Amino acid sequence: MDLKEKIRTIPDFPKPGIMFRDITTLIEDYDAFEETIKRLFTIAEKYDIDKIAGIESRGFIFGTPLALKLKKGFVLIRKKGKLPGKTISQEYDLEYGKDKIEIHTNSIEEGDKVLLIDDLIATGGSMRAACELVEKAGGNVAAILFVVELPDLHGRDKLKDYDVRSLVSFAGE
Amino acid sequence: MDLKEKIRTIPDFPKPGIMFRDITTLIEDYDAFEETIKRLFTIAEKYDIDKIAGIESRGFIFGTPLALKLKKGFVLIRKKGKLPGKTISQEYDLEYGKDKIEIHTNSIEEGDKVLLIDDLIATGGSMRAACELVEKAGGNVAAILFVVELPDLHGRDKLKDYDVRSLVSFAGE
Repeated sequence: MDLKEKIRTIPDFPKPGIMFRDITTLIEDYDAFEETIKRLFTIAEKYDIDKIAGIESRGFIFGTPLALKLKKGFVLIRKKGKLPGKTISQEYDLEYGKDKIEIHTNSIEEGDKVLLIDDLIATGGSMRAACELVEKAGGNVAAILFVVELPDLHGRDKLKDYDVRSLVSFAGE
Repeated sequence: MDLKEKIRTIPDFPKPGIMFRDITTLIEDYDAFEETIKRLFTIAEKYDIDKIAGIESRGFIFGTPLALKLKKGFVLIRKKGKLPGKTISQEYDLEYGKDKIEIHTNSIEEGDKVLLIDDLIATGGSMRAACELVEKAGGNVAAILFVVELPDLHGRDKLKDYDVRSLVSFAGE
């Protein structure tokens, strides 16, 4: 199955000139969604991991079925102010301004091997911040998975220290 | 397994006087998370449904594994401005002010039987808005599932026309 065909492209979202890769069409198609999780699982099962962590909110869509298939717990990385318990936070740069993500301090134990997941890598800023969060909390990043990669934006440059994998790539399009 | 014991209560979040029921401790525990999805499935499989729709972002956590187990596609209901395609939107009241949720117009087909899911029912405002969205889009609400119910807030009053089920209830606490 060509998963790329299941992803819809919407021009000029969220602003003019951006080609938005929309995974809603993929997850609305049961066969494509199931196949996506199967492929993520095939990659993930090769790593020695304790926990899966996903970035709000599209990271939750792929991360929770994957965690259950791997028989691991799932840890939420959320935008600032959303997690109710004691948190660690990490700032990262946006095109204009900054944003912040957080993780519960008690979600990661010292030495935990954590697999990180999000739907898409663009510039890599939020995933880089997620890696820093996991490490600040005492964990190690075992691997990083994405469903979609936009290599023209060179997001992997920010994640050079890590093992990064993706299923579908949109280059020069 | 007593799923209620896996849910952590955090007092005074997001503001003084509120006892926040935190499902992060449940989903970080693989056995509890798997058991939760199994129980949701046992309820959901009795209904004739075409699609599952979940409300951003904690609805995605339980909705996507459930959809895959039921072999159905998953539809996102998101906060305003997040979905990239053409949307229908529905406003609802918050304690102070209003909020708005959206669904892609092409996600629901005329006559679709939709199972709605979220992590928790408090006052029921956002789920009521979600039902209205599904109906505006031409679908029918087959059933509504929650993991946690706070019956003291009488959220079911707003959902009287629907079949509402929950796994865990916090009353008079």
